[in-house]
Amino acid sequence: MRRLDQIAATATFVDGRVSNPHNTTKDNLQIDHTTDIYKESTQLLLQALLRNEEVRNFAFIQRVAPPLMCRYQPKMKYGKHPDVAFLPMQPTPMRSDLSCTIFIADPSTYEGGELTIHLGSKPVSIKGKRGAAVFYPSTTIHEVLPVTSGERLVAITFIESQICDEKKRDLLYTLNEVAALEGLNMEWDNRVRLEHVRHSLHRMWSTS
Amino acid sequence: MRRLDQIAATATFVDGRVSNPHNTTKDNLQIDHTTDIYKESTQLLLQALLRNEEVRNFAFIQRVAPPLMCRYQPKMKYGKHPDVAFLPMQPTPMRSDLSCTIFIADPSTYEGGELTIHLGSKPVSIKGKRGAAVFYPSTTIHEVLPVTSGERLVAITFIESQICDEKKRDLLYTLNEVAALEGLNMEWDNRVRLEHVRHSLHRMWSTS
Amino acid sequence: MRRLDQIAATATFVDGRVSNPHNTTKDNLQIDHTTDIYKESTQLLLQALLRNEEVRNFAFIQRVAPPLMCRYQPKMKYGKHPDVAFLPMQPTPMRSDLSCTIFIADPSTYEGGELTIHLGSKPVSIKGKRGAAVFYPSTTIHEVLPVTSGERLVAITFIESQICDEKKRDLLYTLNEVAALEGLNMEWDNRVRLEHVRHSLHRMWSTS
Amino acid sequence: MRRLDQIAATATFVDGRVSNPHNTTKDNLQIDHTTDIYKESTQLLLQALLRNEEVRNFAFIQRVAPPLMCRYQPKMKYGKHPDVAFLPMQPTPMRSDLSCTIFIADPSTYEGGELTIHLGSKPVSIKGKRGAAVFYPSTTIHEVLPVTSGERLVAITFIESQICDEKKRDLLYTLNEVAALEGLNMEWDNRVRLEHVRHSLHRMWSTS
Amino acid sequence: MRRLDQIAATATFVDGRVSNPHNTTKDNLQIDHTTDIYKESTQLLLQALLRNEEVRNFAFIQRVAPPLMCRYQPKMKYGKHPDVAFLPMQPTPMRSDLSCTIFIADPSTYEGGELTIHLGSKPVSIKGKRGAAVFYPSTTIHEVLPVTSGERLVAITFIESQICDEKKRDLLYTLNEVAALEGLNMEWDNRVRLEHVRHSLHRMWSTS
Amino acid sequence: MRRLDQIAATATFVDGRVSNPHNTTKDNLQIDHTTDIYKESTQLLLQALLRNEEVRNFAFIQRVAPPLMCRYQPKMKYGKHPDVAFLPMQPTPMRSDLSCTIFIADPSTYEGGELTIHLGSKPVSIKGKRGAAVFYPSTTIHEVLPVTSGERLVAITFIESQICDEKKRDLLYTLNEVAALEGLNMEWDNRVRLEHVRHSLHRMWSTS
Repeated sequence: MRRLDQIAATATFVDGRVSNPHNTTKDNLQIDHTTDIYKESTQLLLQALLRNEEVRNFAFIQRVAPPLMCRYQPKMKYGKHPDVAFLPMQPTPMRSDLSCTIFIADPSTYEGGELTIHLGSKPVSIKGKRGAAVFYPSTTIHEVLPVTSGERLVAITFIESQICDEKKRDLLYTLNEVAALEGLNMEWDNRVRLEHVRHSLHRMWSTS
Repeated sequence: MRRLDQIAATATFVDGRVSNPHNTTKDNLQIDHTTDIYKESTQLLLQALLRNEEVRNFAFIQRVAPPLMCRYQPKMKYGKHPDVAFLPMQPTPMRSDLSCTIFIADPSTYEGGELTIHLGSKPVSIKGKRGAAVFYPSTTIHEVLPVTSGERLVAITFIESQICDEKKRDLLYTLNEVAALEGLNMEWDNRVRLEHVRHSLHRMWSTS
Repeated sequence: MRRLDQIAATATFVDGRVSNPHNTTKDNLQIDHTTDIYKESTQLLLQALLRNEEVRNFAFIQRVAPPLMCRYQPKMKYGKHPDVAFLPMQPTPMRSDLSCTIFIADPSTYEGGELTIHLGSKPVSIKGKRGAAVFYPSTTIHEVLPVTSGERLVAITFIESQICDEKKRDLLYTLNEVAALEGLNMEWDNRVRLEHVRHSLHRMWSTS
Repeated sequence: MRRLDQIAATATFVDGRVSNPHNTTKDNLQIDHTTDIYKESTQLLLQALLRNEEVRNFAFIQRVAPPLMCRYQPKMKYGKHPDVAFLPMQPTPMRSDLSCTIFIADPSTYEGGELTIHLGSKPVSIKGKRGAAVFYPSTTIHEVLPVTSGERLVAITFIESQICDEKKRDLLYTLNEVAALEGLNMEWDNRVRLEHVRHSLHRMWSTS
Repeated sequence: MRRLDQIAATATFVDGRVSNPHNTTKDNLQIDHTTDIYKESTQLLLQALLRNEEVRNFAFIQRVAPPLMCRYQPKMKYGKHPDVAFLPMQPTPMRSDLSCTIFIADPSTYEGGELTIHLGSKPVSIKGKRGAAVFYPSTTIHEVLPVTSGERLVAITFIESQICDEKKRDLLYTLNEVAALEGLNMEWDNRVRLEHVRHSLHRMWSTS
Repeated sequence: MRRLDQIAATATFVDGRVSNPHNTTKDNLQIDHTTDIYKESTQLLLQALLRNEEVRNFAFIQRVAPPLMCRYQPKMKYGKHPDVAFLPMQPTPMRSDLSCTIFIADPSTYEGGELTIHLGSKPVSIKGKRGAAVFYPSTTIHEVLPVTSGERLVAITFIESQICDEKKRDLLYTLNEVAALEGLNMEWDNRVRLEHVRHSLHRMWSTS
C-alpha cells in the first residue's frame, strides 16, 4: 500500500472522461496509462488481488483487466451508470462480469465519495477501508457520490469470470463452501460424489 | 401383480403396430385400449409406479402416460428404435423424457425377449424380475430381442420429468442423495444452504 | 369454406379494438365472441388447420388459440405491431409462438389489405388465396395495409409450439424433411441413428 | 380485509407442520384446508392479489397456488429454510418461482415475527402493513422470527411465473417500465421496435 | 480500393479448392496466401472493415479472420453450401458466426456471379457495389452463380461475434438503435435503466 | 512409442501429488515438468493425438493440455475422483471437457492398474493396449486400481472441446457420421441441407 501511496503522489493523473466520453456525469481523474509508473501500479494491484483466496473462490477468474488508479478531488463524482459488458483488450475484447473497487485512501481522510450500488429496491452505500475491495456485477447501476472534502483514491478493475451468470456463480460458491466446511466429516464416497456435482456444475456453467 | 395376471389372461390384445405404424420392425401385441379392463390395468400399474419412492426421487415426475400392457409371443420382437419425444395426449401433447418397462411375467417363463439398450459403445441387455421396472431416456435407441419360447408380458409407460435433461436430473439426484445421507451430520446452516442450492437447481433446470 | 362464408354473412361483428385497446392503429371488425355462431366458426377453422400435415410438421403444435374471424372494410387497417407473447387463456396463459392468418375472402374481391411482415431489411407483402394460411413468429413486426375497396375477410389464430425458438424449429423441420426424403435409401442402422438425433433434438429443444 | 378477520376468528387452525413435516424448526398454525371457510379465504385472497396491477407487471403470472392463512402465536416461529421448487398440485405439479407473504394483522398488534430474508450478505427484515404483500424468489433462504407478544396473522402463496429466472424477469420488468414511461414520447417506429424487443424477450425467456 | 486493384492485378491467384477440397462445386481462384502481397491485402481489407461503425454496431466483433481476395473468371462459380462453424486458426480455432463478402470489382464490369443466399423460402441475390460489404450467418446456405462475362473480384472474411445467436444479436442491435435515437429525450434515470438492460443482455448473451 | 519408452527410462519422475495436493488417495509418479525431456515427450504425445482422425471427429478440439507421463509402480494407485473443471494455463485457464489416458506400457507387462470409470450404475474397467487412448468427460468419477506387479506407464491429457456438453457433442458426432456414410447417396440439395443443420448445431452448441 505504501508504494501505491508514493505512486499516487508522483504519477500524472488525467481527466477520467477519456475512458467513457459518452457519460457526461463522469468527473474524476485517472492515472496516465501511457507512463511506466502506471505499469508498476497495475502489477502491484493485480498481485494483491490474486493473492486473496476469498476473491479467487467466488470470482472464478478467467481474465482480469489491469487495475486503474482513480482520484476524486472535492466536488468530483461519477453519476449513475452501469459498466459496459465488453472492454477493448488484446488479443480479443474481454467480457466484464465483475467490477471491482479497491479502496486505497483511508476513509477517514475524505468525506462523501461513497460508492453507491443500486441493486434491488434500496441503494447500498459503501466506503471501504484502506485495502478493502468491493465487487458487484458489472452491469449493475452504480455511482460515486460527490466528494465533499479530502481526496478519494481508489483503483478499479474488471474481471471476466469462468461463470458469466451471477446466480450460478453464487450457487457454486455456496456449494463449494458447504463442501469445504462439511466435506471432512462425510463418508469418502459422498464427498467424491459432491465433488463430481461441483466440478460438473463448474464446467457446465462456463457456457450457459 | 396377481390381478394383472388375471387381466392379462382375460383381456383382448391387439396388434401393437397400431401405436407405431411407421416402424416395420415392431411385432407384438398390446391390450385393447378401448375396453374397461384396460382402464383398470392402467390404474393398478400407475399406483404401483407412484408408490415407489426411488422412482419419485430420480424421475422428478411431472406427468405419466397410462401404462400399456404388451405381450410378446414366440418370434415376436421390436427392432431398434428410439421412442418419440412427444405423445399425443389430452389436454396437450406430453413430452416423454423417460421410457419405462415394467416386467410382469417371471423371466424364467420365457426365453429371449431381452430389452436391449444402445447407450454408448456397448449394448446393455435386461430381463427384469417380476415387478421390476427399468427406465431409460426415451430417445435412446433400444429394442426387444425376439422371444424364442414362452411369453414375455410387460407394461410400458412414459414420464415427462420436471427436468428434461438427463445429465441435470442425475446431478440433482446425486446432490439430493448426498444431502439425505450426510445432512443430519451437518451444521444447521450448512444444511439449509445445501437445501437452497438443491431447490434452486430444481427450479432453474425445469426450463433449461 | 362455404359455411364460413355463411357465418361471415350472418354473424355479428364488433370493433376489433376490444382485443387490443392499447393499439390506436387498429381499425377492423371481429366476430362477436359471445355468440354460438362464433363457437361454430372456431371449430371449423381449427379442424381445417389441424388437418393440414404441412402445418403439423413445421409448427410442432402444443396448443392453438380459437381462430377469430376478422373483417376489414374499406379504409380499415391494422398498423405496425408485434403480437403479444402470452394470451390470457384457461386454465393457464398460452404462449404465442406463431401467429397465423387464414385468408377467407378471395383476393380478387378486395383491393389493398396486404398482410405486410417486417422481417430483416425488406418488408414482405402477402395477399393469400382463399383457404391459404400464412405463419410468422408472433413477435415479428407486421401490419395490415388499408383496404381500398371490397372487404378483406380472414381468420387469425395463435400457436404455442413445442419448440419456442424459430431457429431450432426450422433446423428440426429441415432434418425431418431430409429424413423423410432420404431415409428409405439409408441403411437401417443409419436411419435409426438419424431418428435418435431428431427425437433427441425435439425433446431437448422443448425447454431451451 | 374485514371478512378475512372474521374468517381468522372463526376458522379452525391446525399445526403447520402438516405441510412441511421435514422441517423441525417450523412452529405455526395454518387454516384447516378441509373446510369450506378455507375455500372462501383462498378466493378472497386470490382476487385481492390479482387485482394488483403492480403484481401482475413484475410477476408474469402463469399459475398461483391457493393462498393459505397462517397464524403465529407467542413463541411461534419458522426457522431458516428455502421453499421447495415444486408443489404437488392438480393436474400437474406447480413450479414455485415466487413466494408471497400477505400481511393481514396490523404490525402494531404483535411484536417479533419479522419475515427475514437472507439475500446476499445482509439479512433483510420485513414487517408489512395490513394488506401489504412481499415477494421473493421461492428458493431464497428466509425465516419468521419468534413472535414475542400478540398474534401474527398472514397468508402465504406461491406463484409460477412465465419467466422462471429472476434476473430475466427483472430485466423485462425494467424494460417494460421504461417503455411505459417514455413510449409516448418516442417516434412510433421506435416505440414499435421496442415493443418487438420486449415481446420477443418475454417469449424467449419463458423457456430458458 | 485502388491499392486493392493493383494487388489484384499483380498478385498470384491459386485454385480456390485448396480451402474447401470436399466441395466439388467450388470453382474459383484465391490469392496465394504464402506471399507478402497477401498480407498487405488482408491488412487493407481488415482496416476498412473495422473503420465502419455500422459493422461494429451490429456484429459485436470478437475476432475476425484475415480477409481473402477471390476472383471468379467466366464460367467460375461456387455451388450451394453453408460455411463451416469453426475455422482452423492460431492460437485456437475460431467460430465463424458471420460470413462477409466485400465487393471489389464494380458490378458493371461483369455479368452473372450473384451471391445468392437461401434464407427462408425465397433466395435473395446480391451484386454489391464496389466497396460494399454483405453479411449473413455463416451456416446459411448460399452460392455464387456462374460468371458469364467479365471478372468478379471480391474478398471474403469471417467474424466471431460476442453474441453467437443471430436472433439475440438482432434484438440487442435494435435495442441499441432505439436507445441511440430516443435516449437523449428520456429522463436520465430511464436512460440509465435502459443502459442497464442493454449491457446486461450483451453480457448474458455472450454465453447462451 | 519407442522414443517414449526411452524417455520413460531416462527421465526423472517425481511424486504425483504435486499436481493434486488435496487428494490423499493419489499415489503415483509423474515426469518432472521442469526438464527438457518433458517438453519432448509432450510434443510427441500431442502430435500422436492430433494425427488421429477419429479423435478429431468426436472431440471437436479447441485446446489441449500438454500430455503428462505418469508411472504407477507396485502398490501405487489413484483413488476415486473427478478431474477439475478448469486447469491453470497460459494465457487463460483452460476448461477440461474430456480427460484422456494414453496407454504406453503393454498391458501384459503389469497386473492391476485398471482405469475404472464410474458412469451410470456399473463401473467400467479398462486396460488399454499399447498406444490406445481412452476418453471420458473430465468430471466423471474415475480411479486407477492398485498395480500389483510390473509398472503401469501412461500419459494423461485434457481437452477443451468446442462443445462443452457431452450429450450435444455425441448428437453432432452421430449426425456427422450418418452424413459421412449416407451423404454420397443423397440428392445434392438434401445433402447441403443436412450440412446446414450440422454446421448450425456446431456453431449454436459452442455456447450453450
